[in-house]
Amino acid sequence: MVKKKYNLKASNLWTRAKKLIPGGNMLLSKRPEMFLPDEWPTYFSKSKACYVWDLNNRRYIDVSLMGVGTNILGYADTSIDKKVKEVIYKGNLTTLNCPEEVELANKLVSMHPFDGMVKFARTGGEACSIAIRIARAHTNKELVLACGYHGWHDWYLASNIKNDKNLNSHLLKNTSIGGVPSNLKNTIQLFEYNKINEFKKKISNKKNIACVIMEVSRNFAPSKNFLEEIRKITFKKGIVLIFDECTSGFRETYGGLHQKFKIVPDIVLYGKAIGNGYPITAVVGKKNIMQAAQTTFISSTFWTDRIGPTAAIATLDKMKKKKSWKFITDQGRKIKKKWRIIFKKYDFDVQITGLDPLPAFKFLSKKHLEFKTYITKEMLKRGYLASNTIYLSTSHTNKILNNYLKNFEIVIKNLSKIKKRKKIVKKICHSEMRRLN
Amino acid sequence: MVKKKYNLKASNLWTRAKKLIPGGNMLLSKRPEMFLPDEWPTYFSKSKACYVWDLNNRRYIDVSLMGVGTNILGYADTSIDKKVKEVIYKGNLTTLNCPEEVELANKLVSMHPFDGMVKFARTGGEACSIAIRIARAHTNKELVLACGYHGWHDWYLASNIKNDKNLNSHLLKNTSIGGVPSNLKNTIQLFEYNKINEFKKKISNKKNIACVIMEVSRNFAPSKNFLEEIRKITFKKGIVLIFDECTSGFRETYGGLHQKFKIVPDIVLYGKAIGNGYPITAVVGKKNIMQAAQTTFISSTFWTDRIGPTAAIATLDKMKKKKSWKFITDQGRKIKKKWRIIFKKYDFDVQITGLDPLPAFKFLSKKHLEFKTYITKEMLKRGYLASNTIYLSTSHTNKILNNYLKNFEIVIKNLSKIKKRKKIVKKICHSEMRRLN
Repeated sequence: MVKKKYNLKASNLWTRAKKLIPGGNMLLSKRPEMFLPDEWPTYFSKSKACYVWDLNNRRYIDVSLMGVGTNILGYADTSIDKKVKEVIYKGNLTTLNCPEEVELANKLVSMHPFDGMVKFARTGGEACSIAIRIARAHTNKELVLACGYHGWHDWYLASNIKNDKNLNSHLLKNTSIGGVPSNLKNTIQLFEYNKINEFKKKISNKKNIACVIMEVSRNFAPSKNFLEEIRKITFKKGIVLIFDECTSGFRETYGGLHQKFKIVPDIVLYGKAIGNGYPITAVVGKKNIMQAAQTTFISSTFWTDRIGPTAAIATLDKMKKKKSWKFITDQGRKIKKKWRIIFKKYDFDVQITGLDPLPAFKFLSKKHLEFKTYITKEMLKRGYLASNTIYLSTSHTNKILNNYLKNFEIVIKNLSKIKKRKKIVKKICHSEMRRLN
Repeated sequence: MVKKKYNLKASNLWTRAKKLIPGGNMLLSKRPEMFLPDEWPTYFSKSKACYVWDLNNRRYIDVSLMGVGTNILGYADTSIDKKVKEVIYKGNLTTLNCPEEVELANKLVSMHPFDGMVKFARTGGEACSIAIRIARAHTNKELVLACGYHGWHDWYLASNIKNDKNLNSHLLKNTSIGGVPSNLKNTIQLFEYNKINEFKKKISNKKNIACVIMEVSRNFAPSKNFLEEIRKITFKKGIVLIFDECTSGFRETYGGLHQKFKIVPDIVLYGKAIGNGYPITAVVGKKNIMQAAQTTFISSTFWTDRIGPTAAIATLDKMKKKKSWKFITDQGRKIKKKWRIIFKKYDFDVQITGLDPLPAFKFLSKKHLEFKTYITKEMLKRGYLASNTIYLSTSHTNKILNNYLKNFEIVIKNLSKIKKRKKIVKKICHSEMRRLN
């Protein structure tokens, strides 16, 4: 158990950050307010496997977001980092291109059953926008049907122009979209996951649909024939089907989750985990569609850096060798099973969701956020970065997880004793974007 | 002089690349066709200072684009790379934030005379889109007035919806914009550099203008009062003035080129050189405007990587210490002067343009591209990556440049003897985007 000591340094730095950076950092999911206001360590000094050290050199075990999904092979993987350091020694970027991008393109194309091509970017938002641009250019149509989370760009946030709650069940609750051009209001329509009849209705009477973009699965498994029907309809109508696998890729299969369900999209997006902590994202698609990129302008200096493709090649090779997707899926299943037992034992009504390697729980209670904050607070005292979601990695061994579960059970037991109190924690964590000052 | 030997390996790889990646790579300016079709080395194995080695381990001196503007301190700078390797050892990305982003934000804000805030991204295109989003959110208006090059995103390419030649004098000639939503057609208007009356006319009768985005200077110096007038008018009308200094930043000053002209924008964008070859870009602006980022959703996982801010801190420190902007400006002036002398001596009518540290020449002849291709071809034989533009770096010492100029003079002399021939080179380089197969 870690001794409690108020982390002054980090807290001061976050106060300073909020004065220098609107919202304090670059990713909503990494705001301390999303975990434990005023008490979350917020900044790291170093990391290894599933360990993270804060600025006071206190070590935690990360059983939360693992870089928000970036590190399936654990933090600071020695063999991947070695490859990266080699290309740093040789130079990261020059007037010429790096040969690694061709090797990586080849690797990604070979994973798919179609004659494919690839465009690389360095963020998921960019990858989504590239895919949308290509789909629109290829079809010469403009309307997008979307489901799930696809980043911060105009084309997607335009969903909320007519009603700022439209994205509530996709992105985040009550996302305000200042600065998104109102002219885009009829360029996108959302559909709900697993509601095939709603989808069919939305798609049936429209002629201007360029593409359907969706996550294969996030919180829930696809219901019978949901993906099959979408594939059948989009294929028939010549609509480009884009699977955004930035989050789901390489979690349950070596490649996209669509492989598990045997549904072949026209374009698939990978990001997050494919560089094991180094920025690289990819748009992989059928050649005849991807060539539409040549009828438009998609180009960026930093998409030519050498670290991205080098890290991705090393990461893909190591994932393949270790069969990491099998390991993290197994570990996630165990977690789900144990969570169920613990919550039942202490009489909590909880919904367990998420892909197996990304298990999550939600209290079926108005006090969900308060309970979640309590858990984070108490687990932090015990040396864990923990929330209600675990992004499993190969560094989450049985020993690590058994210890986590032992501590987790004690915390839930303690929570069960005080759960009827009016106030359980001082400050409840945020669940949506709020203005920070 | 380097022995000529046909570079089979690179050429094969490029052919393969074009089958796997639409257009062959991720940046138009790095296509071999833009330099020397079929003969450009295309790929690099390693680099150091201003040296680049191709896949056959042949060494060239880069007196061309130096990573397309990314490496003012030369390739593979040991002290910057050391800092990067340290954070790789400590872990590039975790669930917590890296403290370096706060330090970098502070550094960038302190360079400007306003109470400022910063958002970071990893590409220039993203930085531009963040600035546009913030300006629109802040003003609650939508129209953009733009001048110069600002990337591949929808908001900017929308300039060409009404006429696909609109961007000819800004971006690239005849840029096709497949897939850009036609609804955006009235959301942007272009104005020409140094035409203040045109600008005044465009701005005078419109109420819906959110911002003016422009490069401070690229090919030509600003005419008297051009920038002053734009600043005066935008200030008076409450229009956000954005200077895109992704290319011009840290070339003639420690910071933006706007410092030289003593014009303070509301938002300024930095990219390219600030990480000396590592992806990092920044949107720096006045606090009251930047806070509009909190009324919209701007968030990305890979914007939290630690290499970007670490490289930028080390790069800014080293640039400051070496006064790199002075050195490269001086070297660029020398180059411009010597080019003038050489071209005059061999009777070529040439226009010399560009910022001093980014000198460029253009033949005032229909044969410009053919002459340019010849120069690249002949300089390549002599061991140089050379085109008609030099992005100067601190590694371009007097010795390097004197040798370059000696070789350059011989090539121009030889060109002068054959310049009236019908065909000077086998394949002329491209000057615009074309479909590659």
